[in-house]
Amino acid sequence: MKMDLRLDHIGIVVKDLERSCLDYQRIHGLRQKTKRIHEPAHDVEIMFFETGHGSMPMIELIMPLSDSSKVSGFLKRTGGGIHHLAYEVNDINDAIDHYKSLGSIILGGIVPGAGHSNLPTVWIYTPDKSLIELIEKGHHEQ
Amino acid sequence: MKMDLRLDHIGIVVKDLERSCLDYQRIHGLRQKTKRIHEPAHDVEIMFFETGHGSMPMIELIMPLSDSSKVSGFLKRTGGGIHHLAYEVNDINDAIDHYKSLGSIILGGIVPGAGHSNLPTVWIYTPDKSLIELIEKGHHEQ
Repeated sequence: MKMDLRLDHIGIVVKDLERSCLDYQRIHGLRQKTKRIHEPAHDVEIMFFETGHGSMPMIELIMPLSDSSKVSGFLKRTGGGIHHLAYEVNDINDAIDHYKSLGSIILGGIVPGAGHSNLPTVWIYTPDKSLIELIEKGHHEQ
Repeated sequence: MKMDLRLDHIGIVVKDLERSCLDYQRIHGLRQKTKRIHEPAHDVEIMFFETGHGSMPMIELIMPLSDSSKVSGFLKRTGGGIHHLAYEVNDINDAIDHYKSLGSIILGGIVPGAGHSNLPTVWIYTPDKSLIELIEKGHHEQ
């Protein structure tokens, strides 16, 4: 199967989004791309930075809003850091079928991605222990 | 200071480079960009994959070759995973001065990057606990 993936963003879990927003500008020298975005599907607030390649790929800072957020365990265990890679795909159902057929675990269902104009997104845990996110942009962008 | 960073690669530490090379093609559906490269400065073997954006940014798979490799502790502690982000900079000494002035720790000195035509590279640990690599490509590329 030809997957035709394009890296959309690198997700980095942080404890304090406001503080990390300043650090990513001042220390890392990256350009802020969006304001804070509330993503109810994962109970987080997120914010995007450019990585020097125009509109993508981006860095996504992710702050859990409660202990029940999907990323709060990672934050507690590690203190924060790089959490996942997210890819654009043309057809999210085809991609899920591909990953399932190779033994991946689909984490929950397809949910709207608040940071991506509510396009369909899904989280997948692959047999080689990578956590990835897929975002279906293929049929939506002009 | 205008840093003018460009994301060059995402470094992922793996236990078995040959196995992960197959997984990144078969499971993740990414295109292999280079063969195995021996990088003596860090006692590792590395290999690059495309991320759907042409020549960069890339994914770098990194396998430590001995217990004294700089990444073997990370592999033992975590079982492997996303390890660092690497950025191109125009002037590595200017960039080091910038990061130092903000309290970053320079990990060792400037070493030739075997995966980058032996261009000058350096590893930096920032005050917000990010591990980053800088690669000076600015004055070298045509």
